[in-house]
Amino acid sequence: MRTGVWLVGARGSVATTSIVGALALRAGLSGPTGCVTELPEVRGPALPAFADLVFGGHDVVATPLAKRAEALATAGVLPARLVAALPEELAEVERELRPAPITGSQADRAAAIGRDLTEFRERHGLARVVVVNVAATEPAPGPHPAHADPDALRAALSGPDEVLPPSSLYAYAAVTAGCPYVDFTPSTGLRLPALTALADTHRVPYAGHDGKTGETLLKSVLAPMFAMRHLAVRSWSGLNLLGGGDGATLADPAANAAKVRSKQRVLGETLGYLPQGDTRIEYVEALGDFKTAWDLVTFAGFLGTGMRLEFTWHGCDSALAAPLVLDLARLTAAAHAAGHTGPLADLAFFFKDPLDSTTGSLADQWTRLCAFARQLHGGGADAERG
Amino acid sequence: MRTGVWLVGARGSVATTSIVGALALRAGLSGPTGCVTELPEVRGPALPAFADLVFGGHDVVATPLAKRAEALATAGVLPARLVAALPEELAEVERELRPAPITGSQADRAAAIGRDLTEFRERHGLARVVVVNVAATEPAPGPHPAHADPDALRAALSGPDEVLPPSSLYAYAAVTAGCPYVDFTPSTGLRLPALTALADTHRVPYAGHDGKTGETLLKSVLAPMFAMRHLAVRSWSGLNLLGGGDGATLADPAANAAKVRSKQRVLGETLGYLPQGDTRIEYVEALGDFKTAWDLVTFAGFLGTGMRLEFTWHGCDSALAAPLVLDLARLTAAAHAAGHTGPLADLAFFFKDPLDSTTGSLADQWTRLCAFARQLHGGGADAERG
Amino acid sequence: MRTGVWLVGARGSVATTSIVGALALRAGLSGPTGCVTELPEVRGPALPAFADLVFGGHDVVATPLAKRAEALATAGVLPARLVAALPEELAEVERELRPAPITGSQADRAAAIGRDLTEFRERHGLARVVVVNVAATEPAPGPHPAHADPDALRAALSGPDEVLPPSSLYAYAAVTAGCPYVDFTPSTGLRLPALTALADTHRVPYAGHDGKTGETLLKSVLAPMFAMRHLAVRSWSGLNLLGGGDGATLADPAANAAKVRSKQRVLGETLGYLPQGDTRIEYVEALGDFKTAWDLVTFAGFLGTGMRLEFTWHGCDSALAAPLVLDLARLTAAAHAAGHTGPLADLAFFFKDPLDSTTGSLADQWTRLCAFARQLHGGGADAERG
Amino acid sequence: MRTGVWLVGARGSVATTSIVGALALRAGLSGPTGCVTELPEVRGPALPAFADLVFGGHDVVATPLAKRAEALATAGVLPARLVAALPEELAEVERELRPAPITGSQADRAAAIGRDLTEFRERHGLARVVVVNVAATEPAPGPHPAHADPDALRAALSGPDEVLPPSSLYAYAAVTAGCPYVDFTPSTGLRLPALTALADTHRVPYAGHDGKTGETLLKSVLAPMFAMRHLAVRSWSGLNLLGGGDGATLADPAANAAKVRSKQRVLGETLGYLPQGDTRIEYVEALGDFKTAWDLVTFAGFLGTGMRLEFTWHGCDSALAAPLVLDLARLTAAAHAAGHTGPLADLAFFFKDPLDSTTGSLADQWTRLCAFARQLHGGGADAERG
Repeated sequence: MRTGVWLVGARGSVATTSIVGALALRAGLSGPTGCVTELPEVRGPALPAFADLVFGGHDVVATPLAKRAEALATAGVLPARLVAALPEELAEVERELRPAPITGSQADRAAAIGRDLTEFRERHGLARVVVVNVAATEPAPGPHPAHADPDALRAALSGPDEVLPPSSLYAYAAVTAGCPYVDFTPSTGLRLPALTALADTHRVPYAGHDGKTGETLLKSVLAPMFAMRHLAVRSWSGLNLLGGGDGATLADPAANAAKVRSKQRVLGETLGYLPQGDTRIEYVEALGDFKTAWDLVTFAGFLGTGMRLEFTWHGCDSALAAPLVLDLARLTAAAHAAGHTGPLADLAFFFKDPLDSTTGSLADQWTRLCAFARQLHGGGADAERG
Repeated sequence: MRTGVWLVGARGSVATTSIVGALALRAGLSGPTGCVTELPEVRGPALPAFADLVFGGHDVVATPLAKRAEALATAGVLPARLVAALPEELAEVERELRPAPITGSQADRAAAIGRDLTEFRERHGLARVVVVNVAATEPAPGPHPAHADPDALRAALSGPDEVLPPSSLYAYAAVTAGCPYVDFTPSTGLRLPALTALADTHRVPYAGHDGKTGETLLKSVLAPMFAMRHLAVRSWSGLNLLGGGDGATLADPAANAAKVRSKQRVLGETLGYLPQGDTRIEYVEALGDFKTAWDLVTFAGFLGTGMRLEFTWHGCDSALAAPLVLDLARLTAAAHAAGHTGPLADLAFFFKDPLDSTTGSLADQWTRLCAFARQLHGGGADAERG
Repeated sequence: MRTGVWLVGARGSVATTSIVGALALRAGLSGPTGCVTELPEVRGPALPAFADLVFGGHDVVATPLAKRAEALATAGVLPARLVAALPEELAEVERELRPAPITGSQADRAAAIGRDLTEFRERHGLARVVVVNVAATEPAPGPHPAHADPDALRAALSGPDEVLPPSSLYAYAAVTAGCPYVDFTPSTGLRLPALTALADTHRVPYAGHDGKTGETLLKSVLAPMFAMRHLAVRSWSGLNLLGGGDGATLADPAANAAKVRSKQRVLGETLGYLPQGDTRIEYVEALGDFKTAWDLVTFAGFLGTGMRLEFTWHGCDSALAAPLVLDLARLTAAAHAAGHTGPLADLAFFFKDPLDSTTGSLADQWTRLCAFARQLHGGGADAERG
Repeated sequence: MRTGVWLVGARGSVATTSIVGALALRAGLSGPTGCVTELPEVRGPALPAFADLVFGGHDVVATPLAKRAEALATAGVLPARLVAALPEELAEVERELRPAPITGSQADRAAAIGRDLTEFRERHGLARVVVVNVAATEPAPGPHPAHADPDALRAALSGPDEVLPPSSLYAYAAVTAGCPYVDFTPSTGLRLPALTALADTHRVPYAGHDGKTGETLLKSVLAPMFAMRHLAVRSWSGLNLLGGGDGATLADPAANAAKVRSKQRVLGETLGYLPQGDTRIEYVEALGDFKTAWDLVTFAGFLGTGMRLEFTWHGCDSALAAPLVLDLARLTAAAHAAGHTGPLADLAFFFKDPLDSTTGSLADQWTRLCAFARQLHGGGADAERG
């Protein structure tokens, strides 16, 4: 069951790390650390094997993939020996990368994207192609009447307006080509009524938003801890210092706002109230591909006694995100194969701002993910942790 | 359903905070922050109300309870206004405190403890008395042949040897008087075959060991997070700085060893392997009743990329422990009323080193606690969080 | 040599703590912890004794000083026993507090302030009155032609414009009344050419700006450490979370900007370059009178190896600032007595943004302070640390 | 003025980094970050140039230097490009390394070491050879009567006893061969009366002990900060987690004790009292060549208000130590050339546990170092920072 993985932003750090990692796994050069779909509770026959994944993608830049991989090796994100060992495999993926269409109406560009997807699928005889958005975070778009309705949208795309932000144009092209769509970023993607209606019409499943890789991951276990112990969180303040490409993007206040909103949701959902304090994102180029997040939580215990928790998370976003990109491609492909359509709320485990989800607790999301995996595999995962 | 709560170490910080807190709750002077049994998922009709709890206890020291409460108010552990508002209620509890028996054979002392328990129960017409050990941590005792068998134990206690450590002598007296027993410390308590056999004979339930109030609580949500994300924890090192009475006790290397063993267990159980690194406990008198724990976790992500998490927990042990003491008294009383006997493995949520438990994950322990509470309440808690 | 200390913002947390502390020292109820002028290298006969300080001041609010002191005791800033022990002494200071003039032209208000100062001096037969601004931080004012010249300023003050921000109006009133002036805040104060010219005319010394009490104090020893070791600081990022009155004021972006500029200066001066990264200030009401600052410093060592330092400072601003207010009042009074006029650059040790200073290194500022103290005391401090 | 630098422990991480760094500096491939002797206040004509340093040394292991350098590059301590660029230069140094003598009496071994030193000096026509001990930390030796007197020592060395620990045997060989000696470790080295007497007889200068590269460096600026502000430090607790070779050595309790003593000295010297709390060292192999130190300082401000400072230092010991090794070799060579003999107390800036020094304050030590450098350079450094 050969499965296509089409990456929007295919030459970025996350995409490059995903590709190198999958190639290394296929070649037996590395293990599956970080891959949730290789845990006993989740893995199973319904998921396409790493060896069955075929990569392609779009990007607005043209830096060769091998160059990007070498740069990531120098930065300490990828082991240099892996990059050195996979030149032919990387060249093979390079041939499947296409420039992002930039001319013509949005309808023209959507059609070009759709053609790239269809040709990719046919060229490799793929069962399906999952489109994953790992491009830089966009600002939220202004409202547009055509966002509400598929027909209005189709009409508007042929006009001169930039009706859709890029993430949504890719989502539009994906679903109309019958491809499942995953949004790993906080960008709009499929989150417009016209697009979810189209996804339903084309019977494709989709997942999102915004991969949960650092501070929010911690919040999704720490906030439930405070709730389960009936401790009253008074304030939760955070500062995220980022040096990578995403950091530069997020220095733009509009993109920053989208991200910060997405990061705060978990507190309200798991505590039942919003404590004082904010989460900030700041670009510090010297940090490179690593990210440092510091959080201060002040809380009251029995009889009001004040206490505090501080944490510092020093993570490499690409190394945390890439295995989840592979997990999501595998799970979404299996869901498509099993006939699922619409929002995959069972994948909330992977996201900061999950679709249609009612819980922000990582443990609850995990329980749901395991049940979903068992169902995909025909009722029995090959092992279960409890 | 008036229920006795008999505290071993009744004049200590944890006991004093538990008593003042329960009196304040009864008087409507404070809310139930920190009390797990007041969360919608756990509370219900099977639990004795705070107003139905009657306190008594033993201690080796004689400082008046009101003096201890005032000292805790000065130290910032208790609000001074609460202590000032409850002089008569504290005096009432004072009258129920007894000196720890210190003369005669261990059999004599056990008999004296048993009489104190029985008289307490009868004097107040209590449905039952739950004995909770909140005394200072003991070193692990040497082995003794009488630990294996109830009859041998009974015989040996009349001899000149100190056969049992104090926590176990109280446990012996409690179960032979038909009282459920909770060990909130890492001391031996009921963990000897002769004593668990006696508990079975007398059909009493028991719970333990070692209340989970700080660093281990964090480990019980963070270690599962790493496991669920398939991240490889390379090292987990911790330093606990304690200033209170427990700190001074734990400066004794033997007691320290018991505590540290209890704190490491969660990592093995939730990760499936033991990472490098140790947990240390150190006494720093200047920290007073507050405790600072610092942990460094180093871990590998996808393709081996090294990352790290640090946290600092600045907590007040008494304020964290006291509401759990009340929770355990209420739940154990309800379990006894419902006919439960033997180890209450469903209460693992509360302990660092739980009896008969198979999981160290706080979320899994929470699920089990909620199910247990529902069962106690006759199949339906008054609300459920999901 | 009785000396007046006139506090602008006399009912604020810093002023109240300064007054209670000085009264407690005078009464022998507390020691001089935090008072630099009581160290062997600085103390000496030229400084007025604590017992010789007489307090007065202006404020825009009217809450009684005793009430403010009680609130600070409840918040853990002042020991309740001190406040309880000094009711008459506080009432005595209360009688010397005056409402900030709010009607009439700025010239009228300046005249009223000046009368209050003069009457205070005469009423108590004071050798001199040092005016210290501890009021809330102001936004930087817009430019005004009258800021350049004393005569133009005098004329403009009688007009309808708000020519001067409040801190500068107090500075104007102080120097024209012959009073030395200390600005403990980042507000404008005397930093206008017209005002420094007036200070010269009236032959008074002045000091400022912005008491160095937390994160910047640390920077003033850590940045020189990196410089002395020839380590290359790549980034220095900080987040200050404040809950007190000053936090609320600084939530105003304009005031925040003034403060942040003042906090960054030390890095440029001690490193010789500005590393990447910013310092942020954020208001979190739940933190009360305490402040938490977190800083991340990344730096390169030999051959470019990347390393990092993180620190968290959890301080009580009032407790850190108050003894420095007393120090500055004593030193400025002694400087005035010794005939010093103009900016007291030797007091840079106390400030984030010192007047006319060429070094940001705390150690260098300390050397200069000690030399200044020796000179004031007639060439020999009573001891020297070396 | 070609100068020999003879490293005891020449194949260790610190020595290898020092050698690679000096070669890279000589080749213009890297800058002098971390080298104190390249700061304007210290550099000058009296110091041998990097290009004039000739390296040799002893080691108990035989791993080729180039292999050690490659391993350090893989570990992120050295840039791989530097190691790759210097194969011939490394091979040249390799030819100057000698196995540590291990047979015969201690007198025989000392003679062999002395011959190696003398031949090295003559082979390269060196003005002098500075011996620097960078070998693993030793336990403190037991007392021996021969430690008190040169003649007794000479006699005892020919006997069967291990009279001297290795660091002291090298020191003995160095001074009797007329070589200045630097102890960069906490080992005994020259600190025996018999050896300092011999150094005086042979008119050589010496320096030590224990390079100040991490937590103690921070203490030497932070403790003076608390002292200068008259803040009362209540507790200072630290945990050092080390993964490198030194970490494994220090896991030995006896070596650990020597190191910890050396780390505490600075607090007593700069504060004037010893606060509560300890410093611990722990080996965590997974940390590799990096070291993480966490310190918690609690202190009292005005009127006793409790506050706290925490810091985490994440440093690479070799990258911090290596430039100081070069600095010390250059400064000690210049001191020898200028006729200095005995302990070089002016180099306290570089050490945790400096010889004959009266201050633990880094700023004071810096002032003294700068004066010493100016004197070496003939009264005027080429610039001065102030």
